[in-house]
Amino acid sequence: MGSMTKRPSALGAEIGPIRRIHHVGIIVADLDAALACYRDRLGLPFEAILDHPTDGVRLAFLGAGDSKVELLQPTEAGTGVARFLAKRGEGLHHICLEVDDIAHALERAAAAGLDLIDAAPRRGAEGPVAFIHPRGTNGALVELIEAPGGPAWVALGYRIS
Amino acid sequence: MGSMTKRPSALGAEIGPIRRIHHVGIIVADLDAALACYRDRLGLPFEAILDHPTDGVRLAFLGAGDSKVELLQPTEAGTGVARFLAKRGEGLHHICLEVDDIAHALERAAAAGLDLIDAAPRRGAEGPVAFIHPRGTNGALVELIEAPGGPAWVALGYRIS
Repeated sequence: MGSMTKRPSALGAEIGPIRRIHHVGIIVADLDAALACYRDRLGLPFEAILDHPTDGVRLAFLGAGDSKVELLQPTEAGTGVARFLAKRGEGLHHICLEVDDIAHALERAAAAGLDLIDAAPRRGAEGPVAFIHPRGTNGALVELIEAPGGPAWVALGYRIS
Repeated sequence: MGSMTKRPSALGAEIGPIRRIHHVGIIVADLDAALACYRDRLGLPFEAILDHPTDGVRLAFLGAGDSKVELLQPTEAGTGVARFLAKRGEGLHHICLEVDDIAHALERAAAAGLDLIDAAPRRGAEGPVAFIHPRGTNGALVELIEAPGGPAWVALGYRIS
């Protein structure tokens, strides 16, 4: 058993602080059937269903403490979500981590050698988001989202109430 | 009997309330390499490493707001975690939801038709746990954990400080 080499951030390039797990994304074949499990059997409080046609998905959000569960049903062939469902079946798809300044976090992520799917923040259903490729994060697809009211909210034209 | 004042559901069998996402479990081939990503690049605060030989895993926990990321490295062949790594590679493995009374939650889960891997709570690294089979939860492996100090902590002989 090796000893832990706790490097004081050799790279000086960590993207945190990570504020919370914003949500965990689960790909499902049928949103209504999945709600019968996550809302009715597991008892997670239902928040919203929305169509997000630019990503070819229909989404449902359920509360889980300070985080959410996001159910994603593909509505179009050829998207990453549709290909995942066809190839691997239903299941856990991504983990979304909240940061204060997503553009800054992406800069640091790139400097740390992580492989960005989105080089710049783009409009997500719940705020500015960007994905990091799982090849640099031990097979787990990591999404970043910017906390409400951050700089990318303004830059991407979100309404801040 | 205590009064059941939960909100009505179709089945009357939801296992909640779910208090939070306790952690998200990611299976990795090498814990040290994975820490270089999750601790040093993503910047999640390191909490602990521990061996959990009864499950054939070595675990690392990192903080993420009110939740954690759990990295699992298999240390024995033939376990579910080792088979997952061999078959699917590194990646997201399970989501752990916190409940107040895990024995009660399992009873309700069974009544709701969910397929339990653990019919009764067992000792996990961080408290009493039980897994629900992904075939009833849209492909996502769901773990339940009991909040600190709950009834199964006593029943399973955890020290409550």
